[in-house]
Amino acid sequence: MAGLDDVLGAVDAGLDASLARLSDFLRIPSISTDPAYAAECRRAAEFAAATLTDLGLAAQVRDTAGHPVVVGRTDTGAPRRVLFYGHYDVQPVDPLELWDTPPFEPRITKGADGKTRIFARGACDDKGQVFTFLEALRALKSVTGKLPVDVTVLLEGEEECGSPSLPAFLAASADELKADVALVCDTGMWDPETPAITTSLRGILHTEFTITGADRDLHSGLFGGAARNPIHVLSRILAAVHDDNGRVTIPGFYDDVREMPQEVRDAWDALGLTAEAFLGPVGLSVSTGEKDRSLIEQIQSRPTFEVNGMYGGYTGQGSKTIIPSSATAKVSIRLVADQDPAKIAAALKEFVTARLPADCKVSFSKADGSRAVLVPPDSPDLAKAGKALAEEWGRTPVAIGSGGSIPIVGQFRNVLGMDTLLIGFGLDDDRVHSPNEKYDLNCFHKGTRSWVRILTALA
Amino acid sequence: MAGLDDVLGAVDAGLDASLARLSDFLRIPSISTDPAYAAECRRAAEFAAATLTDLGLAAQVRDTAGHPVVVGRTDTGAPRRVLFYGHYDVQPVDPLELWDTPPFEPRITKGADGKTRIFARGACDDKGQVFTFLEALRALKSVTGKLPVDVTVLLEGEEECGSPSLPAFLAASADELKADVALVCDTGMWDPETPAITTSLRGILHTEFTITGADRDLHSGLFGGAARNPIHVLSRILAAVHDDNGRVTIPGFYDDVREMPQEVRDAWDALGLTAEAFLGPVGLSVSTGEKDRSLIEQIQSRPTFEVNGMYGGYTGQGSKTIIPSSATAKVSIRLVADQDPAKIAAALKEFVTARLPADCKVSFSKADGSRAVLVPPDSPDLAKAGKALAEEWGRTPVAIGSGGSIPIVGQFRNVLGMDTLLIGFGLDDDRVHSPNEKYDLNCFHKGTRSWVRILTALA
Repeated sequence: MAGLDDVLGAVDAGLDASLARLSDFLRIPSISTDPAYAAECRRAAEFAAATLTDLGLAAQVRDTAGHPVVVGRTDTGAPRRVLFYGHYDVQPVDPLELWDTPPFEPRITKGADGKTRIFARGACDDKGQVFTFLEALRALKSVTGKLPVDVTVLLEGEEECGSPSLPAFLAASADELKADVALVCDTGMWDPETPAITTSLRGILHTEFTITGADRDLHSGLFGGAARNPIHVLSRILAAVHDDNGRVTIPGFYDDVREMPQEVRDAWDALGLTAEAFLGPVGLSVSTGEKDRSLIEQIQSRPTFEVNGMYGGYTGQGSKTIIPSSATAKVSIRLVADQDPAKIAAALKEFVTARLPADCKVSFSKADGSRAVLVPPDSPDLAKAGKALAEEWGRTPVAIGSGGSIPIVGQFRNVLGMDTLLIGFGLDDDRVHSPNEKYDLNCFHKGTRSWVRILTALA
Repeated sequence: MAGLDDVLGAVDAGLDASLARLSDFLRIPSISTDPAYAAECRRAAEFAAATLTDLGLAAQVRDTAGHPVVVGRTDTGAPRRVLFYGHYDVQPVDPLELWDTPPFEPRITKGADGKTRIFARGACDDKGQVFTFLEALRALKSVTGKLPVDVTVLLEGEEECGSPSLPAFLAASADELKADVALVCDTGMWDPETPAITTSLRGILHTEFTITGADRDLHSGLFGGAARNPIHVLSRILAAVHDDNGRVTIPGFYDDVREMPQEVRDAWDALGLTAEAFLGPVGLSVSTGEKDRSLIEQIQSRPTFEVNGMYGGYTGQGSKTIIPSSATAKVSIRLVADQDPAKIAAALKEFVTARLPADCKVSFSKADGSRAVLVPPDSPDLAKAGKALAEEWGRTPVAIGSGGSIPIVGQFRNVLGMDTLLIGFGLDDDRVHSPNEKYDLNCFHKGTRSWVRILTALA
């Protein structure tokens, strides 16, 4: 009977053919945000469905209010089933003049550093990453005649424009899409040699509030020294949100935050991420986060409060001597663990209201939020995938948290009741969403091998 | 020899004729800001010059880069000379449909309250006020054959559009315009029964500063919790500017502030101005000023720090999850007494810079400022004018400070070396700059009588 090494050998032997198939996929300009490319999006969906059929899955292109969704599945009665999610749509290519070669004519070249890369829009995000999974299925099928687990593949065509049709599709197809665990290949490695599994996503709470004072803008000469200035009030409130140690002072803010297990924190500490390394590339050098937390904790497992925008009074050229009637802050709060957006929104409201001086009112926009998503650190599937990645890369994968919300993962948890393993092979320099997007051949190749190992391990 | 009562009697007897002359002046639509009315501005200047000539002054219409300036003077060898300043231009009349009668067809009517008023654009600001002075000259001249002091009258035509041509004219005509004291009739009464002399004008310092953190806007999910947020930094700095007692904490801020004499403060206290009365009409009720100062002190004789505008990050609709690269505050500081704009600008710069955390930079715009103007409380001319007003109105005039800067007054002090008495008869409800501008007949009549008394007293 054929073993794992035979399958991995098939991946190696078939690499050129895999790249040829990926290149065909990359040639389709499936730009989802531009209605002019709607037919190309459908063509990409049909290409993906044909690929799934070729792999032995029962595949369909399903219409939605927007671009279609592709669903394919095996039903071999295997004891376990995985749901793989990815997307076939890509970002626009502007500014086109900054591309070295046309974005939809894939180019494979070896760089001065000896590394081979494939350049095209979607080379990494997400066509290349999706193909690591599909080519792993192909190798498994071709060598062993079957897959170690039953597989459902879900590919959407609106990820780059906010996935407007996906929640309704997911809710309507819940039974069909249910699996033991979800797999997403749309994230990155820790570095070119070290794989990563994204095990937590911070949730988010958006809100906006406006402090109002006088019922009109006032002349600062006539009223200055007596009339309440809402910008001053807002500044005082925002200044009170963090203490000198970077901790958020809103009562109850940390109530539902969980401490990460010691072994996770030990593993993070071992990575030795420094502020210089993380912040240096954007012109900063010192972290402003909670002083008693490591940098990785600060950006991954701790909640944050950020003012994303603020305005009040005159903001044009020159000066205008007014005491403005109002001042506004747009705020986002990153949530972790069990923090409830509604509860945190209420705590913020109380915090602000308690600090309102005489003559001021505050109005809040509707708070809009989603909870954090966390793969339980003791999840057996997480351990299996981690071991499989370690075997492929020769390094223990890093369990990373992402600050960016990926709403689909929360929906998998809440609607379909399953955890998601986010495993991807992108690199920081892949220029995703930018001109000259690329995917390293090594990432594609070892990524494909990784999925062979992971699917075998999850069985 | 004719006495003061004879002159006042002439004012009374000639009131209808005075109003007829003012009405002729009001019929000229001398809107300075609209080039379409340039010829009307010149016509108003010529009307004013003819009026001055009629009063026995040597008067000329002088060209400037903009609308002309009118200068008239007597040279009788009187021991003292006053310079009277006013303006012949008026504000635009939009929205025209809100006027009860056409703005340049003066209407004199008695209201339901029994008070007679003259309605027209410029009825108060400043044609009506200028005419109180000119009609006082007329009465003095007609009864006594001469004026008690030599008089220089300076009427400009660009006051409503920022007086762009006046500084150069003043500098070039300094010798000609020099006098013992300047008189300006472009301010208001304390209330309809109580006259006022504006004896101090706060100076002003405009500046703007921007706090910069990272060299680009950052994703608040990826960097939130670690990267410095310039909005937070700016909020902390602005929150530190005032202490809990409303006092500005910038070191040295109050160094050159003078205490007003006890008698001035006693007089202010006696007025009993309450926060309810002053702030109620704009929807406020409590003063935020220095707790140990009376409301009048706060708005008249104390320096203030106000943020007129603030912005940073995303300020459009909805949300954008960024940590902005920068945040900006536009600030104006009202100056009093001997405060030096350059010194205060330097103190602010040091205050902000000292509070900059790691990784932040700050850049300041060029600070632009003018010193406060103060008529010395022990000025003999101030005392004489005050006594004259008290005799006319039966009430001691209120010495008020104005927060608004009137640059011409600073120039009279700095270029011509003389103090200015700002004495006007406008009321809060005169709708200056608005539709249905009016001037109370009582203000016009007793204003004219007031100037007769003041000019006699100043001799």
